Amino acid sequence: MVDGENTQLSTVVCLQVVCSTQSSNYNYIPKDFAVPNNAAYFHITTNNTIHGTQWRHIPKVSVPLVADMSSDIFSRQLNFNDFGLIYAGAQKNMGPAGVNLVVVNKHILGKVSRAIPTIMDYRNHIKEGSMLNTPPVFAVYVCLLTMRWLNQQGGVNAIEQQNIKKAELLYKEIDDSPLFKGKVMVEDRSKMNVCFVMNDTSLEKDFITFTQQHGIYGIKGHRTSGGFRASLYNALPIQSVQYLVELMQNFALQRS
Amino acid sequence: MVDGENTQLSTVVCLQVVCSTQSSNYNYIPKDFAVPNNAAYFHITTNNTIHGTQWRHIPKVSVPLVADMSSDIFSRQLNFNDFGLIYAGAQKNMGPAGVNLVVVNKHILGKVSRAIPTIMDYRNHIKEGSMLNTPPVFAVYVCLLTMRWLNQQGGVNAIEQQNIKKAELLYKEIDDSPLFKGKVMVEDRSKMNVCFVMNDTSLEKDFITFTQQHGIYGIKGHRTSGGFRASLYNALPIQSVQYLVELMQNFALQRS
Repeated sequence: MVDGENTQLSTVVCLQVVCSTQSSNYNYIPKDFAVPNNAAYFHITTNNTIHGTQWRHIPKVSVPLVADMSSDIFSRQLNFNDFGLIYAGAQKNMGPAGVNLVVVNKHILGKVSRAIPTIMDYRNHIKEGSMLNTPPVFAVYVCLLTMRWLNQQGGVNAIEQQNIKKAELLYKEIDDSPLFKGKVMVEDRSKMNVCFVMNDTSLEKDFITFTQQHGIYGIKGHRTSGGFRASLYNALPIQSVQYLVELMQNFALQRS
Repeated sequence: MVDGENTQLSTVVCLQVVCSTQSSNYNYIPKDFAVPNNAAYFHITTNNTIHGTQWRHIPKVSVPLVADMSSDIFSRQLNFNDFGLIYAGAQKNMGPAGVNLVVVNKHILGKVSRAIPTIMDYRNHIKEGSMLNTPPVFAVYVCLLTMRWLNQQGGVNAIEQQNIKKAELLYKEIDDSPLFKGKVMVEDRSKMNVCFVMNDTSLEKDFITFTQQHGIYGIKGHRTSGGFRASLYNALPIQSVQYLVELMQNFALQRS
Protein backbone atom coordinates (compact mmCIF):
# COMPACT_ATOMS: atom_id res chain seq x y z
CA MET A 1 0.00 0.00 0.00
CA VAL A 2 1.47 3.27 -1.05
CA ASP A 3 0.99 6.39 0.98
CA GLY A 4 2.03 9.94 0.30
CA GLU A 5 1.55 10.10 -3.44
CA ASN A 6 -1.19 12.65 -3.00
CA THR A 7 1.28 15.13 -1.53
CA GLN A 8 2.21 17.57 -4.26
CA LEU A 9 5.84 17.43 -5.32
CA SER A 10 6.63 14.81 -2.74
CA THR A 11 8.81 11.97 -3.97
CA VAL A 12 8.47 9.99 -0.76
CA VAL A 13 6.82 6.65 -1.34
CA CYS A 14 5.83 4.95 1.86
CA LEU A 15 4.70 1.34 1.78
CA GLN A 16 2.58 0.52 4.79
CA VAL A 17 1.57 -3.02 5.67
CA VAL A 18 -1.88 -2.75 7.24
CA CYS A 19 -2.13 -6.44 8.07
CA SER A 20 -0.02 -9.57 7.92
CA THR A 21 -0.47 -13.22 8.85
CA GLN A 22 3.25 -13.93 8.78
CA SER A 23 3.25 -15.07 12.42
CA SER A 24 0.98 -17.99 11.50
CA ASN A 25 2.90 -18.73 8.30
CA TYR A 26 0.27 -17.00 6.18
CA ASN A 27 -2.32 -19.71 6.71
CA TYR A 28 -5.32 -17.41 6.64
CA ILE A 29 -6.60 -14.17 5.12
CA PRO A 30 -6.79 -11.31 7.62
CA LYS A 31 -10.27 -9.99 8.33
CA ASP A 32 -9.75 -7.18 10.84
CA PHE A 33 -7.69 -4.34 9.54
CA ALA A 34 -8.01 -0.63 8.97
CA VAL A 35 -6.90 1.13 5.82
CA PRO A 36 -5.85 4.75 6.46
CA ASN A 37 -8.22 7.18 4.74
CA ASN A 38 -5.29 9.13 3.31
CA ALA A 39 -3.75 6.11 1.61
CA ALA A 40 -3.25 6.46 -2.13
CA TYR A 41 -4.54 2.93 -2.58
CA PHE A 42 -4.97 -0.45 -0.88
CA HIS A 43 -3.30 -3.45 -2.50
CA ILE A 44 -4.26 -7.09 -2.22
CA THR A 45 -3.29 -10.26 -4.06
CA THR A 46 -6.58 -12.07 -4.56
CA ASN A 47 -4.99 -15.53 -4.60
CA ASN A 48 -1.70 -16.60 -3.04
CA THR A 49 -0.08 -19.40 -5.05
CA ILE A 50 2.65 -20.19 -2.52
CA HIS A 51 0.54 -20.53 0.61
CA GLY A 52 -2.76 -21.50 -1.00
CA THR A 53 -4.95 -18.76 0.40
CA GLN A 54 -7.57 -16.77 -1.47
CA TRP A 55 -9.65 -13.70 -0.72
CA ARG A 56 -13.13 -15.23 -0.77
CA HIS A 57 -14.74 -11.83 -0.16
CA ILE A 58 -13.24 -8.71 -1.68
CA PRO A 59 -12.86 -6.09 1.07
CA LYS A 60 -14.73 -2.81 0.86
CA VAL A 61 -12.38 0.09 1.43
CA SER A 62 -12.66 3.85 1.10
CA VAL A 63 -9.57 4.21 -1.09
CA PRO A 64 -8.91 2.73 -4.56
CA LEU A 65 -8.49 -1.02 -4.36
CA VAL A 66 -5.59 -2.41 -6.40
CA ALA A 67 -5.47 -6.15 -6.97
CA ASP A 68 -2.93 -8.56 -8.34
CA MET A 69 -5.23 -11.20 -9.86
CA SER A 70 -2.50 -13.08 -11.72
CA SER A 71 -3.42 -16.45 -10.30
CA ASP A 72 -7.20 -16.41 -10.17
CA ILE A 73 -8.42 -14.02 -12.85
CA PHE A 74 -11.19 -15.57 -15.00
CA SER A 75 -11.49 -18.43 -12.49
CA ARG A 76 -14.46 -16.91 -10.68
CA GLN A 77 -16.95 -14.11 -11.01
CA LEU A 78 -15.88 -10.87 -9.42
CA ASN A 79 -17.36 -7.41 -9.73
CA PHE A 80 -14.62 -5.48 -11.46
CA ASN A 81 -16.32 -2.23 -10.42
CA ASP A 82 -15.10 -2.92 -6.88
CA PHE A 83 -11.54 -2.30 -8.02
CA GLY A 84 -9.60 0.81 -8.94
CA LEU A 85 -7.01 -1.25 -10.76
CA ILE A 86 -6.66 -4.94 -11.59
CA TYR A 87 -3.49 -6.42 -13.05
CA ALA A 88 -2.70 -10.00 -13.95
CA GLY A 89 0.10 -11.86 -15.66
CA ALA A 90 -1.32 -14.14 -18.34
CA GLN A 91 0.50 -17.29 -17.32
CA LYS A 92 -2.15 -18.97 -15.13
CA ASN A 93 -5.59 -18.68 -16.71
CA MET A 94 -5.03 -16.52 -19.79
CA GLY A 95 -2.08 -17.59 -21.91
CA PRO A 96 1.71 -17.79 -21.99
CA ALA A 97 3.94 -15.72 -19.75
CA GLY A 98 4.97 -12.44 -21.34
CA VAL A 99 1.78 -10.45 -21.49
CA ASN A 100 -0.31 -8.83 -18.78
CA LEU A 101 -3.87 -7.65 -18.52
CA VAL A 102 -4.55 -4.36 -16.79
CA VAL A 103 -8.07 -3.15 -16.04
CA VAL A 104 -8.00 0.38 -14.73
CA ASN A 105 -10.56 2.91 -13.63
CA LYS A 106 -9.35 6.00 -15.46
CA HIS A 107 -10.35 8.23 -12.56
CA ILE A 108 -7.57 6.93 -10.35
CA LEU A 109 -4.85 7.85 -12.85
CA GLY A 110 -2.70 10.96 -12.99
CA LYS A 111 -2.22 11.40 -9.27
CA VAL A 112 1.52 10.74 -9.11
CA SER A 113 3.55 13.92 -9.03
CA ARG A 114 7.02 12.42 -9.12
CA ALA A 115 8.69 11.54 -12.43
CA ILE A 116 7.85 7.99 -13.50
CA PRO A 117 9.05 6.19 -16.62
CA THR A 118 6.78 6.66 -19.64
CA ILE A 119 6.05 2.96 -19.90
CA MET A 120 4.94 2.77 -16.25
CA ASP A 121 2.22 5.40 -16.75
CA TYR A 122 -0.98 3.62 -17.77
CA ARG A 123 -2.32 6.80 -19.34
CA ASN A 124 0.23 6.38 -22.12
CA HIS A 125 -0.89 2.80 -22.77
CA ILE A 126 -4.54 3.87 -22.90
CA LYS A 127 -3.73 6.72 -25.27
CA GLU A 128 -1.91 4.35 -27.64
CA GLY A 129 -4.57 1.63 -27.57
CA SER A 130 -2.29 -0.86 -25.73
CA MET A 131 0.30 -0.51 -28.48
CA LEU A 132 2.66 1.95 -26.83
CA ASN A 133 5.33 -0.72 -27.20
CA THR A 134 5.53 -3.50 -29.80
CA PRO A 135 2.88 -5.94 -28.53
CA PRO A 136 3.95 -9.55 -27.86
CA VAL A 137 1.74 -10.78 -30.67
CA PHE A 138 2.13 -14.51 -30.14
CA ALA A 139 1.26 -14.27 -26.44
CA VAL A 140 -1.71 -12.00 -27.15
CA TYR A 141 -2.96 -14.42 -29.82
CA VAL A 142 -2.76 -17.41 -27.48
CA CYS A 143 -4.74 -15.38 -24.93
CA LEU A 144 -7.40 -14.84 -27.60
CA LEU A 145 -7.55 -18.58 -28.23
CA THR A 146 -7.81 -19.22 -24.48
CA MET A 147 -10.62 -16.70 -24.14
CA ARG A 148 -12.48 -18.40 -27.00
CA TRP A 149 -11.99 -21.74 -25.27
CA LEU A 150 -13.30 -20.23 -22.04
CA ASN A 151 -16.41 -18.99 -23.83
CA GLN A 152 -16.94 -22.47 -25.26
CA GLN A 153 -16.85 -23.84 -21.71
CA GLY A 154 -19.72 -21.53 -20.85
CA GLY A 155 -17.72 -18.54 -19.66
CA VAL A 156 -16.40 -17.56 -16.25
CA ASN A 157 -19.57 -18.60 -14.45
CA ALA A 158 -19.36 -22.15 -15.81
CA ILE A 159 -15.64 -22.51 -15.21
CA GLU A 160 -16.15 -21.26 -11.64
CA GLN A 161 -18.55 -24.14 -11.01
CA GLN A 162 -15.95 -26.55 -12.39
CA ASN A 163 -13.24 -24.98 -10.24
CA ILE A 164 -15.42 -25.33 -7.13
CA LYS A 165 -16.00 -29.02 -7.89
CA LYS A 166 -12.29 -29.64 -8.50
CA ALA A 167 -11.25 -27.92 -5.27
CA GLU A 168 -13.97 -29.59 -3.17
CA LEU A 169 -12.94 -32.99 -4.48
CA LEU A 170 -9.31 -32.55 -3.48
CA TYR A 171 -9.93 -30.80 -0.14
CA LYS A 172 -12.38 -33.55 0.81
CA GLU A 173 -9.69 -36.18 0.27
CA ILE A 174 -7.18 -34.12 2.26
CA ASP A 175 -9.66 -33.77 5.14
CA ASP A 176 -10.75 -37.43 5.02
CA SER A 177 -7.29 -38.93 4.62
CA PRO A 178 -5.41 -40.38 7.59
CA LEU A 179 -2.13 -39.22 6.02
CA PHE A 180 -2.71 -35.70 4.70
CA LYS A 181 -3.84 -32.41 6.14
CA GLY A 182 -4.47 -28.93 4.75
CA LYS A 183 -2.19 -25.99 5.48
CA VAL A 184 -4.77 -23.23 5.37
CA MET A 185 -7.79 -22.34 7.48
CA VAL A 186 -10.83 -23.85 5.79
CA GLU A 187 -12.67 -20.62 4.98
CA ASP A 188 -9.61 -19.11 3.23
CA ARG A 189 -8.56 -22.08 1.13
CA SER A 190 -7.61 -21.32 -2.44
CA LYS A 191 -9.54 -22.98 -5.24
CA MET A 192 -6.56 -22.52 -7.54
CA ASN A 193 -3.65 -23.79 -5.44
CA VAL A 194 -4.33 -26.55 -2.95
CA CYS A 195 -1.48 -26.65 -0.42
CA PHE A 196 -1.21 -29.59 1.95
CA VAL A 197 1.25 -31.57 4.04
CA MET A 198 1.48 -35.01 5.62
CA ASN A 199 0.91 -35.73 9.29
CA ASP A 200 4.14 -37.71 9.12
CA THR A 201 6.49 -35.45 7.18
CA SER A 202 9.01 -38.29 6.80
CA LEU A 203 6.62 -39.83 4.26
CA GLU A 204 6.57 -36.80 1.97
CA LYS A 205 9.50 -37.92 -0.17
CA ASP A 206 7.87 -41.31 -0.67
CA PHE A 207 4.64 -39.71 -1.78
CA ILE A 208 6.44 -37.52 -4.32
CA THR A 209 8.20 -40.61 -5.72
CA PHE A 210 4.87 -42.43 -5.80
CA THR A 211 3.16 -39.66 -7.76
CA GLN A 212 6.05 -39.45 -10.21
CA GLN A 213 5.86 -43.21 -10.78
CA HIS A 214 2.24 -42.61 -11.77
CA GLY A 215 2.89 -39.70 -14.06
CA ILE A 216 2.29 -36.70 -11.82
CA TYR A 217 5.11 -34.17 -11.68
CA GLY A 218 5.50 -30.90 -9.81
CA ILE A 219 3.30 -31.77 -6.85
CA LYS A 220 6.04 -30.60 -4.51
CA GLY A 221 5.21 -27.36 -2.73
CA HIS A 222 6.94 -24.05 -3.42
CA ARG A 223 10.58 -24.14 -2.31
CA THR A 224 9.90 -21.50 0.35
CA SER A 225 6.88 -23.35 1.74
CA GLY A 226 7.40 -27.12 1.53
CA GLY A 227 4.76 -29.84 1.54
CA PHE A 228 2.64 -30.28 -1.56
CA ARG A 229 0.83 -28.01 -3.94
CA ALA A 230 -1.70 -29.01 -6.56
CA SER A 231 -2.60 -26.18 -8.91
CA LEU A 232 -6.10 -26.43 -10.33
CA TYR A 233 -6.10 -23.66 -12.90
CA ASN A 234 -8.91 -23.40 -15.45
CA ALA A 235 -7.09 -25.62 -17.95
CA LEU A 236 -6.91 -28.60 -15.57
CA PRO A 237 -9.74 -31.09 -16.15
CA ILE A 238 -11.54 -32.59 -13.17
CA GLN A 239 -10.31 -36.03 -14.30
CA SER A 240 -6.79 -35.01 -13.32
CA VAL A 241 -8.00 -34.15 -9.82
CA GLN A 242 -9.83 -37.47 -9.57
CA TYR A 243 -6.63 -39.24 -10.60
CA LEU A 244 -4.62 -37.45 -7.90
CA VAL A 245 -7.25 -38.28 -5.30
CA GLU A 246 -7.05 -41.95 -6.26
CA LEU A 247 -3.28 -41.89 -5.93
CA MET A 248 -3.60 -40.36 -2.46
CA GLN A 249 -6.06 -43.09 -1.49
CA ASN A 250 -3.87 -45.85 -2.89
CA PHE A 251 -0.82 -44.46 -1.13
CA ALA A 252 -2.74 -44.39 2.16
CA LEU A 253 -3.93 -47.98 1.64
CA GLN A 254 -0.38 -49.18 1.06
CA ARG A 255 0.69 -47.66 4.37
CA SER A 256 -2.29 -48.74 6.48
CA MET B 1 20.59 11.59 -23.91
CA VAL B 2 19.99 12.09 -20.24
CA ASP B 3 21.79 14.74 -18.30
CA GLY B 4 21.72 15.57 -14.62
CA GLU B 5 21.44 12.10 -13.11
CA ASN B 6 24.86 12.47 -11.54
CA THR B 7 23.59 15.31 -9.38
CA GLN B 8 22.96 13.90 -5.94
CA LEU B 9 19.32 13.96 -4.85
CA SER B 10 18.30 15.73 -7.99
CA THR B 11 15.17 14.41 -9.64
CA VAL B 12 15.57 16.58 -12.72
CA VAL B 13 16.01 14.51 -15.83
CA CYS B 14 17.09 16.58 -18.77
CA LEU B 15 17.05 15.03 -22.23
CA GLN B 16 19.40 16.86 -24.55
CA VAL B 17 19.46 16.26 -28.29
CA VAL B 18 23.10 16.72 -29.34
CA CYS B 19 22.39 16.27 -33.02
CA SER B 20 19.47 15.80 -35.38
CA THR B 21 19.01 15.38 -39.11
CA GLN B 22 15.32 16.22 -38.97
CA SER B 23 15.74 19.15 -41.38
CA SER B 24 16.81 16.73 -44.13
CA ASN B 25 14.11 14.21 -43.22
CA TYR B 26 16.62 12.00 -41.38
CA ASN B 27 18.33 10.90 -44.58
CA TYR B 28 21.82 10.61 -43.06
CA ILE B 29 23.65 9.86 -39.83
CA PRO B 30 25.20 12.94 -38.23
CA LYS B 31 28.98 12.94 -38.01
CA ASP B 32 29.86 16.21 -36.33
CA PHE B 33 28.50 16.54 -32.82
CA ALA B 34 29.82 17.08 -29.33
CA VAL B 35 28.62 15.11 -26.33
CA PRO B 36 28.86 17.12 -23.08
CA ASN B 37 31.42 15.61 -20.73
CA ASN B 38 28.99 15.80 -17.83
CA ALA B 39 26.29 13.80 -19.60
CA ALA B 40 25.15 10.68 -17.78
CA TYR B 41 25.21 8.81 -21.06
CA PHE B 42 24.96 9.17 -24.83
CA HIS B 43 22.16 7.29 -26.59
CA ILE B 44 22.03 6.12 -30.18
CA THR B 45 19.80 3.79 -32.16
CA THR B 46 22.21 1.79 -34.28
CA ASN B 47 19.69 1.17 -37.08
CA ASN B 48 16.64 3.24 -37.95
CA THR B 49 13.88 1.06 -39.38
CA ILE B 50 11.63 3.93 -40.50
CA HIS B 51 14.15 6.00 -42.42
CA GLY B 52 16.59 3.24 -43.37
CA THR B 53 19.75 4.70 -41.86
CA GLN B 54 22.39 2.83 -39.88
CA TRP B 55 25.41 3.82 -37.83
CA ARG B 56 28.19 2.26 -39.91
CA HIS B 57 30.82 3.36 -37.39
CA ILE B 58 30.04 3.41 -33.68
CA PRO B 59 31.03 6.81 -32.29
CA LYS B 60 33.71 7.08 -29.62
CA VAL B 61 32.49 9.19 -26.73
CA SER B 62 33.81 9.97 -23.27
CA VAL B 63 30.58 9.03 -21.49
CA PRO B 64 28.81 5.64 -21.39
CA LEU B 65 27.34 4.79 -24.76
CA VAL B 66 23.79 3.39 -24.66
CA ALA B 67 22.46 1.78 -27.79
CA ASP B 68 19.07 0.56 -28.94
CA MET B 69 20.11 -2.33 -31.22
CA SER B 70 16.61 -3.74 -31.66
CA SER B 71 16.75 -3.78 -35.44
CA ASP B 72 20.33 -4.79 -36.21
CA ILE B 73 21.63 -6.85 -33.30
CA PHE B 74 23.29 -10.09 -34.45
CA SER B 75 23.23 -8.80 -38.04
CA ARG B 76 26.85 -7.61 -37.95
CA GLN B 77 29.92 -7.80 -35.81
CA LEU B 78 30.23 -5.03 -33.27
CA ASN B 79 32.59 -4.69 -30.33
CA PHE B 80 30.24 -4.83 -27.37
CA ASN B 81 33.00 -3.39 -25.17
CA ASP B 82 32.41 -0.05 -26.89
CA PHE B 83 29.03 0.19 -25.17
CA GLY B 84 27.95 0.90 -21.63
CA LEU B 85 24.54 -0.59 -22.27
CA ILE B 86 22.95 -2.38 -25.21
CA TYR B 87 19.26 -3.19 -25.35
CA ALA B 88 17.25 -4.86 -28.08
CA GLY B 89 13.73 -6.12 -28.56
CA ALA B 90 13.80 -9.67 -29.89
CA GLN B 91 11.39 -9.17 -32.74
CA LYS B 92 13.81 -8.52 -35.63
CA ASN B 93 16.79 -10.89 -35.49
CA MET B 94 16.25 -12.86 -32.25
CA GLY B 95 12.74 -14.20 -31.82
CA PRO B 96 9.13 -13.18 -31.19
CA ALA B 97 8.14 -9.83 -29.70
CA GLY B 98 7.83 -9.96 -25.94
CA VAL B 99 11.38 -10.45 -24.73
CA ASN B 100 14.37 -8.13 -24.72
CA LEU B 101 18.10 -8.62 -24.49
CA VAL B 102 20.08 -6.24 -22.30
CA VAL B 103 23.87 -6.26 -22.21
CA VAL B 104 25.13 -3.98 -19.50
CA ASN B 105 28.51 -2.95 -18.15
CA LYS B 106 27.92 -3.30 -14.42
CA HIS B 107 30.12 -0.28 -13.71
CA ILE B 108 27.59 2.15 -15.15
CA LEU B 109 24.81 1.00 -12.82
CA GLY B 110 23.71 2.47 -9.51
CA LYS B 111 24.17 6.13 -10.42
CA VAL B 112 20.52 7.18 -10.29
CA SER B 113 19.60 8.86 -7.03
CA ARG B 114 15.90 9.34 -7.64
CA ALA B 115 13.40 6.60 -6.84
CA ILE B 116 12.90 4.29 -9.83
CA PRO B 117 10.59 1.27 -10.03
CA THR B 118 12.22 -1.98 -8.93
CA ILE B 119 11.74 -3.59 -12.33
CA MET B 120 13.48 -0.68 -14.10
CA ASP B 121 16.68 -1.14 -12.09
CA TYR B 122 18.92 -3.57 -13.99
CA ARG B 123 20.80 -4.42 -10.79
CA ASN B 124 17.72 -6.29 -9.61
CA HIS B 125 17.56 -8.31 -12.82
CA ILE B 126 21.26 -9.19 -12.56
CA LYS B 127 20.85 -10.21 -8.92
CA GLU B 128 17.97 -12.55 -9.79
CA GLY B 129 19.64 -14.10 -12.84
CA SER B 130 17.17 -12.54 -15.30
CA MET B 131 14.29 -14.12 -13.40
CA LEU B 132 13.14 -11.16 -11.31
CA ASN B 133 9.80 -11.53 -13.03
CA THR B 134 8.26 -14.66 -14.53
CA PRO B 135 10.24 -15.07 -17.77
CA PRO B 136 8.31 -15.24 -21.07
CA VAL B 137 9.40 -18.83 -21.57
CA PHE B 138 8.03 -19.39 -25.07
CA ALA B 139 9.68 -16.23 -26.43
CA VAL B 140 12.97 -17.08 -24.71
CA TYR B 141 12.87 -20.60 -26.15
CA VAL B 142 12.27 -19.36 -29.69
CA CYS B 143 15.26 -17.03 -29.23
CA LEU B 144 17.34 -20.07 -28.28
CA LEU B 145 16.23 -21.85 -31.44
CA THR B 146 17.07 -18.75 -33.49
CA MET B 147 20.52 -18.51 -31.92
CA ARG B 148 21.14 -22.18 -32.76
CA TRP B 149 20.05 -21.51 -36.33
CA LEU B 150 22.39 -18.50 -36.45
CA ASN B 151 25.27 -20.68 -35.29
CA GLN B 152 24.42 -23.20 -38.00
CA GLN B 153 24.68 -20.40 -40.57
CA GLY B 154 28.23 -19.78 -39.37
CA GLY B 155 27.49 -17.20 -36.70
CA VAL B 156 27.27 -13.41 -36.84
CA ASN B 157 30.29 -13.07 -39.11
CA ALA B 158 28.77 -15.33 -41.76
CA ILE B 159 25.31 -13.77 -41.55
CA GLU B 160 26.90 -10.32 -41.86
CA GLN B 161 28.43 -11.35 -45.19
CA GLN B 162 25.01 -12.55 -46.33
CA ASN B 163 23.38 -9.31 -45.17
CA ILE B 164 25.96 -7.27 -47.09
CA LYS B 165 25.25 -9.27 -50.26
CA LYS B 166 21.49 -8.89 -49.85
CA ALA B 167 21.71 -5.12 -49.28
CA GLU B 168 24.19 -4.57 -52.14
CA LEU B 169 21.95 -6.49 -54.53
CA LEU B 170 18.91 -4.35 -53.74
CA TYR B 171 20.70 -0.99 -53.55
CA LYS B 172 22.39 -1.72 -56.90
CA GLU B 173 18.99 -2.18 -58.54
CA ILE B 174 17.67 1.00 -56.91
CA ASP B 175 20.69 2.95 -58.18
CA ASP B 176 20.60 1.40 -61.68
CA SER B 177 16.84 1.62 -62.15
CA PRO B 178 15.30 4.42 -64.19
CA LEU B 179 12.26 4.37 -61.88
CA PHE B 180 13.55 4.08 -58.33
CA LYS B 181 15.91 6.02 -56.13
CA GLY B 182 17.22 5.65 -52.59
CA LYS B 183 16.10 7.90 -49.74
CA VAL B 184 19.31 7.85 -47.72
CA MET B 185 22.84 9.14 -48.33
CA VAL B 186 24.85 6.23 -49.68
CA GLU B 187 27.34 5.93 -46.82
CA ASP B 188 24.58 5.72 -44.18
CA ARG B 189 22.27 3.24 -45.90
CA SER B 190 20.88 0.55 -43.65
CA LYS B 191 21.59 -3.08 -44.48
CA MET B 192 18.46 -4.11 -42.60
CA ASN B 193 15.82 -1.73 -43.94
CA VAL B 194 16.16 -0.52 -47.51
CA CYS B 195 14.01 2.59 -47.99
CA PHE B 196 13.38 3.91 -51.47
CA VAL B 197 10.95 5.94 -53.54
CA MET B 198 10.06 6.39 -57.21
CA ASN B 199 11.15 9.30 -59.34
CA ASP B 200 7.52 9.53 -60.41
CA THR B 201 5.58 9.16 -57.15
CA SER B 202 2.32 8.73 -59.08
CA LEU B 203 3.55 5.22 -60.01
CA GLU B 204 4.01 4.07 -56.41
CA LYS B 205 0.48 2.69 -56.03
CA ASP B 206 0.90 0.70 -59.24
CA PHE B 207 4.15 -0.80 -58.02
CA ILE B 208 2.58 -1.88 -54.73
CA THR B 209 -0.26 -3.55 -56.63
CA PHE B 210 2.28 -5.20 -58.95
CA THR B 211 4.29 -6.63 -56.03
CA GLN B 212 1.12 -7.90 -54.36
CA GLN B 213 0.09 -9.62 -57.57
CA HIS B 214 3.43 -11.42 -57.40
CA GLY B 215 3.22 -12.42 -53.74
CA ILE B 216 5.12 -9.65 -52.01
CA TYR B 217 3.27 -7.89 -49.21
CA GLY B 218 4.28 -5.09 -46.88
CA ILE B 219 6.69 -3.35 -49.23
CA LYS B 220 4.97 -0.05 -48.47
CA GLY B 221 7.07 2.31 -46.38
CA HIS B 222 6.30 3.21 -42.78
CA ARG B 223 3.12 5.27 -42.51
CA THR B 224 5.12 8.28 -41.27
CA SER B 225 7.65 8.04 -44.07
CA GLY B 226 6.02 6.88 -47.32
CA GLY B 227 7.68 5.27 -50.32
CA PHE B 228 8.85 1.69 -50.01
CA ARG B 229 10.72 -0.30 -47.41
CA ALA B 230 12.21 -3.76 -47.85
CA SER B 231 13.41 -5.27 -44.58
CA LEU B 232 16.30 -7.69 -45.01
CA TYR B 233 16.58 -9.15 -41.50
CA ASN B 234 18.74 -12.22 -40.90
CA ALA B 235 15.85 -14.59 -41.59
CA LEU B 236 15.29 -13.32 -45.14
CA PRO B 237 17.08 -15.45 -47.76
CA ILE B 238 18.94 -13.78 -50.61
CA GLN B 239 16.55 -15.48 -53.06
CA SER B 240 13.77 -13.22 -51.77
CA VAL B 241 15.89 -10.16 -52.55
CA GLN B 242 16.65 -11.51 -56.01
CA TYR B 243 12.92 -12.01 -56.58
CA LEU B 244 12.15 -8.42 -55.57
CA VAL B 245 14.92 -7.11 -57.84
CA GLU B 246 13.44 -9.06 -60.77
CA LEU B 247 10.01 -7.59 -60.07
CA MET B 248 11.49 -4.09 -60.04
CA GLN B 249 13.19 -4.78 -63.36
CA ASN B 250 10.03 -6.24 -64.90
CA PHE B 251 7.97 -3.31 -63.67
CA ALA B 252 10.48 -0.90 -65.22
CA LEU B 253 10.44 -2.82 -68.54
CA GLN B 254 6.64 -2.64 -68.67
CA ARG B 255 6.81 1.13 -68.33
CA SER B 256 9.70 1.83 -70.68
